Amino acid sequence: MGLNIKPLSDRVLIEPVAAETKTASGIYIPETAKEKPQRGKVVAVGKGTKDHEMTVSVGDMVLYGKYAGTELKLEGTDYLIMREDDILAIV
Amino acid sequence: MGLNIKPLSDRVLIEPVAAETKTASGIYIPETAKEKPQRGKVVAVGKGTKDHEMTVSVGDMVLYGKYAGTELKLEGTDYLIMREDDILAIV
Amino acid sequence: MGLNIKPLSDRVLIEPVAAETKTASGIYIPETAKEKPQRGKVVAVGKGTKDHEMTVSVGDMVLYGKYAGTELKLEGTDYLIMREDDILAIV
Amino acid sequence: MGLNIKPLSDRVLIEPVAAETKTASGIYIPETAKEKPQRGKVVAVGKGTKDHEMTVSVGDMVLYGKYAGTELKLEGTDYLIMREDDILAIV
Amino acid sequence: MGLNIKPLSDRVLIEPVAAETKTASGIYIPETAKEKPQRGKVVAVGKGTKDHEMTVSVGDMVLYGKYAGTELKLEGTDYLIMREDDILAIV
Amino acid sequence: MGLNIKPLSDRVLIEPVAAETKTASGIYIPETAKEKPQRGKVVAVGKGTKDHEMTVSVGDMVLYGKYAGTELKLEGTDYLIMREDDILAIV
Amino acid sequence: MGLNIKPLSDRVLIEPVAAETKTASGIYIPETAKEKPQRGKVVAVGKGTKDHEMTVSVGDMVLYGKYAGTELKLEGTDYLIMREDDILAIV
Repeated sequence: MGLNIKPLSDRVLIEPVAAETKTASGIYIPETAKEKPQRGKVVAVGKGTKDHEMTVSVGDMVLYGKYAGTELKLEGTDYLIMREDDILAIV
Repeated sequence: MGLNIKPLSDRVLIEPVAAETKTASGIYIPETAKEKPQRGKVVAVGKGTKDHEMTVSVGDMVLYGKYAGTELKLEGTDYLIMREDDILAIV
Repeated sequence: MGLNIKPLSDRVLIEPVAAETKTASGIYIPETAKEKPQRGKVVAVGKGTKDHEMTVSVGDMVLYGKYAGTELKLEGTDYLIMREDDILAIV
Repeated sequence: MGLNIKPLSDRVLIEPVAAETKTASGIYIPETAKEKPQRGKVVAVGKGTKDHEMTVSVGDMVLYGKYAGTELKLEGTDYLIMREDDILAIV
Repeated sequence: MGLNIKPLSDRVLIEPVAAETKTASGIYIPETAKEKPQRGKVVAVGKGTKDHEMTVSVGDMVLYGKYAGTELKLEGTDYLIMREDDILAIV
Repeated sequence: MGLNIKPLSDRVLIEPVAAETKTASGIYIPETAKEKPQRGKVVAVGKGTKDHEMTVSVGDMVLYGKYAGTELKLEGTDYLIMREDDILAIV
Repeated sequence: MGLNIKPLSDRVLIEPVAAETKTASGIYIPETAKEKPQRGKVVAVGKGTKDHEMTVSVGDMVLYGKYAGTELKLEGTDYLIMREDDILAIV
């Protein structure tokens, strides 16, 4: 079942992933890291703007700064919505 | 009866919705969340600018930051007027 | 009798209207609202700039933020002069 | 006798007029107003820039903010030099 | 084995090199230098943006400011991810 | 003998003139004026930039703000180097 | 022997020259001047950007502000790397 939410402009909806999990490429961020980047899965992607074509796709795993984005909650799950430019990398 | 108000440039008039209500897609924002995004219904939409084409339409349910926009009151109802770029997502 | 004043660039001259008055569309702003938008009538409009085409016309009733614009006085009446971008909506 | 001074770029040289004087259109600014706009006569006008075509002409009476511009003195008379964008209106 | 990470936009992933090491061109930065530039090897490069075409390539040794970028850890190794504009020079 | 110095981009090298001197057009700035504009002679002019075509020429007398530019000394004489946009007027 | 370092974008590598030295054109900056411009020789030049074409060449003597650029050390010699726009003049 897909989420019925459309991020505006160059925003991306992300479902954060537990920080200590390892990815296929072996990246993980230890819990003790205070300002280290976080990891999450892209759940919804805006259409971009005249000046910003979107790069990430639904399903991508991404890294982002610890304080990036705005939190919102959907049926008990926490999400983050942020501008794509706050995403550091696809992992 | 429609409201006789035309937001200027890229502004949107929004009627806030009680925060604890659930949407069809199940999004809700608990009252205890202090800085969580708010939800509302688009009531009027500006014509946009040369650099900003409008995306939302009258009737859309939208999420926006808690401190976004300017409050105004119409016949006992509170509204918010904000730039479309302060809207996070359509839900 | 028209006012002999030409606002420069994208500025608009506005005659503020008593805040408690109701408009045809029923909008009013109670006196107790400290930072709520104000209402006024457009008295003179600049020619705009290369980047900003003017939207409001003389005679329009407009809403604007409480601290928008610069006050000036003409024959005992108080006016405000502000950039059109400080106007929130036409009512 | 004309002043031999050429304001650079989008600057305008203004000779301030006593604040309590009334114009033909009846605008005056009382002495007690601390931050109210000031009035003056345009004495010299720069050539403008690629992004700013000049609007005011020598001889125009203009309104400007109390703290706009830089003071300079010519043969005992005080002048102000400011960017045209600091001028609020032609009166 | 290559790292499975794609920096977004104009970002570059860098593996820092011990500061006291000398390069072929003889550049080194002593440990006592507090705000001196750091040196590292480019590990992954974003695709750039409409306004920023990428210059560095994977394998380049680069200098960057001490506080540039965001730290991330991959299988026990520390990396930095930063915008290419934070890189000072290729050495 | 000409000075062998080429200001970069839109910079201008100026030899300040004693503030109390009167020009042909009668402008002078009294010594007691603390923040009043200063006067000097243009000694060298940069080539300008894509966005800024130069207006002043070597030999022009110009007015500029008291704190504009950077001081440098050449064979016992003090000069100022500043961006042309810091020059208020040619006198 | 040339230095094997390529400044990125619009950056310039400069070898500072003792401040009290006189140039052919007679410019010198006394040691007691705290915020006066400094002098150095251009050692390496970046390729510039879409918006900034480079002006200085390797071997040019340049003036720059006292706090411009980032220090780096190469085989016992101190260098500065700065954006070309921080260079005031070629002397």
